[in-house]
Amino acid sequence: MISPLITLTTDFGTDSPYVAALKGVVLGIQPRARVLDLSHAIPPQDVRHAAFFLAESVPYFPPGTLHVVVVDPGVGSSRHILYVENQGQRLLVPDNGCWTWLIDADQPPTVRRLIETAYWRSNVSATFHGRDIFAPVAGWLSRGLDPQALGPLTTEWVSLPKPALEPTVNGWRGEVVFIDHFGNLITNIPGAALATAQTILMDNREVANRVRTYADAAPGTLVALVSSGGWLEIAVVQGNAAQRLQVIAGARVLVTGSQAS
Amino acid sequence: MISPLITLTTDFGTDSPYVAALKGVVLGIQPRARVLDLSHAIPPQDVRHAAFFLAESVPYFPPGTLHVVVVDPGVGSSRHILYVENQGQRLLVPDNGCWTWLIDADQPPTVRRLIETAYWRSNVSATFHGRDIFAPVAGWLSRGLDPQALGPLTTEWVSLPKPALEPTVNGWRGEVVFIDHFGNLITNIPGAALATAQTILMDNREVANRVRTYADAAPGTLVALVSSGGWLEIAVVQGNAAQRLQVIAGARVLVTGSQAS
Amino acid sequence: MISPLITLTTDFGTDSPYVAALKGVVLGIQPRARVLDLSHAIPPQDVRHAAFFLAESVPYFPPGTLHVVVVDPGVGSSRHILYVENQGQRLLVPDNGCWTWLIDADQPPTVRRLIETAYWRSNVSATFHGRDIFAPVAGWLSRGLDPQALGPLTTEWVSLPKPALEPTVNGWRGEVVFIDHFGNLITNIPGAALATAQTILMDNREVANRVRTYADAAPGTLVALVSSGGWLEIAVVQGNAAQRLQVIAGARVLVTGSQAS
Repeated sequence: MISPLITLTTDFGTDSPYVAALKGVVLGIQPRARVLDLSHAIPPQDVRHAAFFLAESVPYFPPGTLHVVVVDPGVGSSRHILYVENQGQRLLVPDNGCWTWLIDADQPPTVRRLIETAYWRSNVSATFHGRDIFAPVAGWLSRGLDPQALGPLTTEWVSLPKPALEPTVNGWRGEVVFIDHFGNLITNIPGAALATAQTILMDNREVANRVRTYADAAPGTLVALVSSGGWLEIAVVQGNAAQRLQVIAGARVLVTGSQAS
Repeated sequence: MISPLITLTTDFGTDSPYVAALKGVVLGIQPRARVLDLSHAIPPQDVRHAAFFLAESVPYFPPGTLHVVVVDPGVGSSRHILYVENQGQRLLVPDNGCWTWLIDADQPPTVRRLIETAYWRSNVSATFHGRDIFAPVAGWLSRGLDPQALGPLTTEWVSLPKPALEPTVNGWRGEVVFIDHFGNLITNIPGAALATAQTILMDNREVANRVRTYADAAPGTLVALVSSGGWLEIAVVQGNAAQRLQVIAGARVLVTGSQAS
Repeated sequence: MISPLITLTTDFGTDSPYVAALKGVVLGIQPRARVLDLSHAIPPQDVRHAAFFLAESVPYFPPGTLHVVVVDPGVGSSRHILYVENQGQRLLVPDNGCWTWLIDADQPPTVRRLIETAYWRSNVSATFHGRDIFAPVAGWLSRGLDPQALGPLTTEWVSLPKPALEPTVNGWRGEVVFIDHFGNLITNIPGAALATAQTILMDNREVANRVRTYADAAPGTLVALVSSGGWLEIAVVQGNAAQRLQVIAGARVLVTGSQAS
């Protein structure tokens, strides 16, 4: 039998003992677990960053993988913790919308609210539910616990709005959704728009060069291309577009000529 | 049979090849080992940071886990390397006190000094005992080597003093022991003191707001609460208290009214 | 049977979803794989950094380990992707020389160019071959796929020149090859030169203190020693030599008196 696969995505950093404690609790309950780090470098409390991160990575995992996500500014408050089954993936998440960009309207998720404390640590702290609730529940689930035991089904959860994307008379008005490790700016405008775009304005500056991949232009060139996730992306070849343009997530992007709307 | 679990805690960073080399040596000897990263982001040579890190994470692991800890400013000197059994956990540590905050006086540890070079790499460098001694010994232990073979028992080791905590006429004088990834300030004052505290002074500035968890106050509020490890903690809600207050580990904390001493 | 071991070395960082997606694809094809992080902190597009990193870590792994390396400024261009067998290790690498410092002239590697798209993801993006080619091929190889199926043998590949090392009348002229996490400066001058060196000039400043290990001098001392990889290394005891001396990789090092050439 294959050891159960449990992935971890947090904003804990690894300089603090929090990731290690969480791993210890999981393995204390399920010593066979294969614990796999996805990221502990989500910016602190940045639920939107986590949402994009999960949308672009979770779908690649084998069905049945359990994803533990602890980016949780509301820890200890009345926010719920959810167990989710969505398109074959399983998730334990705070009810703050971090997972909702994964939803496909045609395949609604199954969602439960965690209320059964028997599967939590006996003393639940007010500030570290990752260790005290998420980790032990993950351990028990990976030992085969029926998710029904965790709590009741619900059809209500916090949904994270997607960044505004508006069709214009002859194109799109969107925004930078995610800035990656290389400083590439990933927008919410469909990559297909690139083929017919007349002008691309990133934060009011025109991006004139359009390429298929980074190596198609000289180092230092500001380029537009289709991201690996299928979105319009603005990059600097072998450089950092976010630093060059001094933009942050949320910056406005305007594409004209790409659509008859 | 479950593959043996070996955790790694170092100050190596992951931009350098040192963690990778260490993993290679472990797996070269014990290909079945499950090697689990706890942290490679301990600040360089910061034995106190490592001590707090281990105290707040190691106890959660299943009994028999082998923890390899290489935060080792004395590498290559006459400092010893120790094999420790402590409350069911096993550790390989430099003899610099990094593990001694785990000791429970009622359950004294079993400690050996590593002297048997047969289980080390044949050419031991002067600067990388992680690769040349810790890793191969971890590999051999996880293959079932009797720890007696490593070297003799000892009852002498370097003990890291705990930060000063003094009862005052009507409270506590302590200090910041650890600053976590979020900039939260973890002190050495028992969290129970919070309930009756009249005033809390962090580095001479009063912390007026007391909460159960971060979400109990508005973003940006400076608050006192009980940390997930049971200590008095000073935090800024969705912010960074260390940056806000410009304090570092060792900063003085004074609590009055919390104790009749 | 032991689960196949697949190591990952990238410049992706872990704040972005790229490492996670890559892991998901590998595990989607080979759910038994043990995926081991070597580094995701290679500086962006820094092929030389990757080359040193691999040279100092890959040889320690057990034979048959599959190393996936994605430091790939040429992604999507006409650069090839290679499957390499070298001294018992297996690698999947972009053909940019990142692996060639591992070559031993006496044991030439076996190298194949990846051309068989049947083992790639069906839609290969132009910018993320890590997810779309490297990961699925790693998954299939770890399931036992004969490497012959990937593509034809080749004896041509991009070779990364080693940094210039010149014997002088009475010593060596070399350079800083790698700056590690501690700010230690690793040069390309053989460590053996240290024993007889009369003067050591790092970027025109003399390094007067020679030690066996860091602990042999007081904190803050600038020292020369033999690195754990066998090279001349310049360090500041419990400090950061790169910051102190303000040097970067490529800085000139001159040793006199160490060699009659």
